[in-house]
Amino acid sequence: MTKAYNLRILGIDPGSIITGYGVIDKNGNYLRHVLHGEIKPPKDSLLSQVLICLYSQLCAVIAETGPQAVALENIFYGKNVRSLIRQAQVRGVVIFTCADLGIPVFEYSPLEVKKAVVGYGRAEKRQVQMMVKAILKLDSLPPADAADALAVAVCQANFMKEQPV
Amino acid sequence: MTKAYNLRILGIDPGSIITGYGVIDKNGNYLRHVLHGEIKPPKDSLLSQVLICLYSQLCAVIAETGPQAVALENIFYGKNVRSLIRQAQVRGVVIFTCADLGIPVFEYSPLEVKKAVVGYGRAEKRQVQMMVKAILKLDSLPPADAADALAVAVCQANFMKEQPV
Repeated sequence: MTKAYNLRILGIDPGSIITGYGVIDKNGNYLRHVLHGEIKPPKDSLLSQVLICLYSQLCAVIAETGPQAVALENIFYGKNVRSLIRQAQVRGVVIFTCADLGIPVFEYSPLEVKKAVVGYGRAEKRQVQMMVKAILKLDSLPPADAADALAVAVCQANFMKEQPV
Repeated sequence: MTKAYNLRILGIDPGSIITGYGVIDKNGNYLRHVLHGEIKPPKDSLLSQVLICLYSQLCAVIAETGPQAVALENIFYGKNVRSLIRQAQVRGVVIFTCADLGIPVFEYSPLEVKKAVVGYGRAEKRQVQMMVKAILKLDSLPPADAADALAVAVCQANFMKEQPV
């Protein structure tokens, strides 16, 4: 018998170079992995080309999986200002793309995400990858940016903020 | 006899609250004002709604005026990090919108823009407004954000970078 899932969540980790994504289903307390991947525009692309590539690949993921909610991490402030600006530009297009398709976008702090998957807020990147693998019963460790995207989707599944961005 | 213009430029000043725009025509050394305005999403809008509003109004300006090039100022680093991130998110959507419609986007530093319109790089905001009014033979001072957008369009008309973003 096929299980009916009542919520499909797309987690996205927008990066200045690589954008990770991960889709999960939530049915009560049960979570199921659907797919994950990374969007990597060709190296040395113009920013405008990066944004177009991101938009079209994200639209393809959304069309394929039909998520009802999108979850993102807040931007991490501790990086240099050039990469912060680039990441924020990418993130603006990610939020626009999802919102324009009518999907609400929710934000979580890195602390909230790590607490949701590892149990405490100071977890290392590798611990996040390992816990995501365990929670979603994956055969192998997902790549770092896809793992972060799956982690924020798991966070959304567990905490469900009321107010979208 | 109607003058033929050989380049139409859209200048945009993407802001975390208001986004100014201004369209000019360039024919040799002669510049002509076409239109200007400001996109002001409703106060207290969600970021997602701001980005959708910006996208649709910008598409409308582009459809109405048919620019061949877009010019933007670089982001100003000296502001607080929250408003920097918000502005960069808006800016990402501005660049995406133009690039997705096939219009190349060029960037200029605030110094280059002020030099182009006022003659020196440390000019005040009000001087930029006054010089834009004079250069484009406007009847009245354009509002500050639209003036900045017209100024970067004038800069593009005079300096024409070779490489888009």
